[in-house]
Amino acid sequence: MNGSLTKEQTLNLRKQFIGPSCTLFFKSDPVKIVSAKGQYMYDEEGHEYLDCINNVAHVGHCHPQVVAAGVEQMGQLNTNSRFLHDNIVLLAQKLVSHLPNQLCMVYFTNSGSEANDLALRLSRHHTKGTEIIALDRAYHGHVVSLIDLSTYKLDRMIDGVHTKPDFVHIAECPDTYRGKYNTASNPNDDLATLYANNVEDILDNIAKKDKQVCCFIAESMQSCGGQVIYPPGYLTKVFQSVRAAGGVCILDEVQVGFGRVGTHMWSFSTQNVVPDILTLGKPMGNGHPLSAVITTKEIAASFEGCGVEYFNTYGGNPVSCAIGLAVLDIIEKDKLLENAVKIGKLMETKLNELKEKYTLIGDVRGLGMFWGLDLVKSRATRAPATDEAAYIVSRLKEEYILFSRDGPDENVLKFKAPMCFNKDNVEHLILKLDKILAELTSNKEH
Amino acid sequence: MNGSLTKEQTLNLRKQFIGPSCTLFFKSDPVKIVSAKGQYMYDEEGHEYLDCINNVAHVGHCHPQVVAAGVEQMGQLNTNSRFLHDNIVLLAQKLVSHLPNQLCMVYFTNSGSEANDLALRLSRHHTKGTEIIALDRAYHGHVVSLIDLSTYKLDRMIDGVHTKPDFVHIAECPDTYRGKYNTASNPNDDLATLYANNVEDILDNIAKKDKQVCCFIAESMQSCGGQVIYPPGYLTKVFQSVRAAGGVCILDEVQVGFGRVGTHMWSFSTQNVVPDILTLGKPMGNGHPLSAVITTKEIAASFEGCGVEYFNTYGGNPVSCAIGLAVLDIIEKDKLLENAVKIGKLMETKLNELKEKYTLIGDVRGLGMFWGLDLVKSRATRAPATDEAAYIVSRLKEEYILFSRDGPDENVLKFKAPMCFNKDNVEHLILKLDKILAELTSNKEH
Repeated sequence: MNGSLTKEQTLNLRKQFIGPSCTLFFKSDPVKIVSAKGQYMYDEEGHEYLDCINNVAHVGHCHPQVVAAGVEQMGQLNTNSRFLHDNIVLLAQKLVSHLPNQLCMVYFTNSGSEANDLALRLSRHHTKGTEIIALDRAYHGHVVSLIDLSTYKLDRMIDGVHTKPDFVHIAECPDTYRGKYNTASNPNDDLATLYANNVEDILDNIAKKDKQVCCFIAESMQSCGGQVIYPPGYLTKVFQSVRAAGGVCILDEVQVGFGRVGTHMWSFSTQNVVPDILTLGKPMGNGHPLSAVITTKEIAASFEGCGVEYFNTYGGNPVSCAIGLAVLDIIEKDKLLENAVKIGKLMETKLNELKEKYTLIGDVRGLGMFWGLDLVKSRATRAPATDEAAYIVSRLKEEYILFSRDGPDENVLKFKAPMCFNKDNVEHLILKLDKILAELTSNKEH
Repeated sequence: MNGSLTKEQTLNLRKQFIGPSCTLFFKSDPVKIVSAKGQYMYDEEGHEYLDCINNVAHVGHCHPQVVAAGVEQMGQLNTNSRFLHDNIVLLAQKLVSHLPNQLCMVYFTNSGSEANDLALRLSRHHTKGTEIIALDRAYHGHVVSLIDLSTYKLDRMIDGVHTKPDFVHIAECPDTYRGKYNTASNPNDDLATLYANNVEDILDNIAKKDKQVCCFIAESMQSCGGQVIYPPGYLTKVFQSVRAAGGVCILDEVQVGFGRVGTHMWSFSTQNVVPDILTLGKPMGNGHPLSAVITTKEIAASFEGCGVEYFNTYGGNPVSCAIGLAVLDIIEKDKLLENAVKIGKLMETKLNELKEKYTLIGDVRGLGMFWGLDLVKSRATRAPATDEAAYIVSRLKEEYILFSRDGPDENVLKFKAPMCFNKDNVEHLILKLDKILAELTSNKEH
């Protein structure tokens, strides 16, 4: 089907038939991509783009082993999980083998949204609590129950229809650079404790109102919120408080799981915690709709105790699970965690060199294959440099590098490339970033 | 991967690692399926089962054209809809070409649950109303927002945690055989009007409480609720009332769309109505996670007006859309609607012959490839024959025929086979049903 329409025709049909809320990258001049391989994407004219943003294509676009696994299973059987099949149990077993012992019961779903929604259902039936604590700037999915607690979306709603329900409580985002407590305003304080105390206060307020906390939900590192790495010890303290109050702790690794941090398979290990419920998604199927919820035997038993079965038509089907097994296999075989560690170190060095050179870069933060550049108009005020971020992303596209920006002020450049991103790719990216940052500096001087 | 585990090993791993809420067909002796083709499934010992229940495998299990479409696209590109791509716009255009003019804006999602949840979001932003009217016995999906209005699930919850919210109003299920108004209790009444008046009453109550109705949501024919065909004129009347009150009408064709009724591509055409929002799912990807919401320009504009984009990671990806295009093509090329009409007529004749013969069959209802046998202990009382339904499903399995039962009393035998089900399959099914019904009668006599 590819290539049968001109780019203009594609764009016109899109305007005619696709809901206008579904927006394109580079709205003023969108990219038409017709094929992809590894960390590269190709447009209809054959231009090669270096992909720094598609974290879903985790082991690389169109990885032959993933394709082969899908192809083989599609021709044989694709049906629901009410029939016994090896793939679903083998994938569950494999996932569990990568996790602490207590996380051993798996539910397969089709998207991060479905996974997080199910995590909420599990936590409600287990705790019988109603109150949910989520982080400011969080995005956990596009279904009603998750928009309810995602200020990343709620804060931008302008029609007054979908607002935060009373049972949702928003905790300060533990962003040590730009959050309420930060290295400028609180240079001598333990920021982890300050932010954890904020959650403690929310728990106190819930108790005062005679309500019961259901769960605390957060990404292990916040992605859409602006590539936020929590201060060491933050989640440990929060988990202690939440559990003491009878709540469960949900960690969302839809964006940050499967080795993205490099040093560990799961980002939560960098905070030395284990959640009660873990949700997985995007990279899990390398683009194929596949996600999961993994929890403890106790929580799974509580959910079963509600008396109603959980059935998800496509969840855990043999094709999805064959692909999931291939992804896990490739992560090991291609040593993608080791690569993430190596690339992460190089990115850290190179990005900090750029920071030395350009005051526009206020903060460089990240781990492995997950980096953020927080751009500022002034290092003293840390005022977000939103226009400059837009300029850089747009210029990088002209240089055939796909990059994005995010955070509440859309001033944080986000790097979350496929895990096969290599040393040469880093050198190339840094060269172009350097060039564009120099342009900005020179524009400013004139 | 198939066949590497014995059935016992598969079952044991399933118990160990899969959430216990995920239940199997034939719990006491589940079936392990390793491959499937057309309307047949094969277990690990090579037994061939005639499949009368997998409505998801719409054009037949592992249809070669569906597999080929998926295979080709998987190797080329699978990424999100923020890049321009032909497949998404071609599939949207094709779907719209099968619909009345006003239904022209498409949103792609990954499951019926995601589609129905998005439909609720659209209706809320468009009407700014809060109150939802759903039918009793309805099942619209497994996410929180849909469990909220699915009494098929809510009525079975025994832990008191998830109950119906106040903004959800349940209308009587317009089941003319077993509902509040039926052919026995109201032999001389216009049942469509009686049931539509019930919705009118709910609208009046909403108005009295100074609330605004948001939407009426229903399947075009109710599947899990017990294969319910609404009385002629019911939806026309309901739509008039709901729209007059400022609400929008959502029809869920996740189970009953894509030609299942035979005479039309969409079941709603049999009721002579057009919804404001239509949701599609299961058959759309023939097993691949693919679903959609289709609405009017006005509703799409209202949703855009909320100020927040809609992004669904896998929704509308090139692989899903290639598969969706193949499914639509096969429906036309293989003349599956014509087949559904032909098989529907044969089923009607044959099932009614069985009804003549066995008083256990209280009601035979259906259209095309969608049939229900409502089993009763007595035709006078219409008391549900639940145990007998269980026996028949279990015995059919021994005869290598996959069948299921549903409805609030689990006494309705459900037929919703792949659309390639043929005349010989019907003859074989009827032969076996006849034999098993005779056993039941003979058991009863002794």
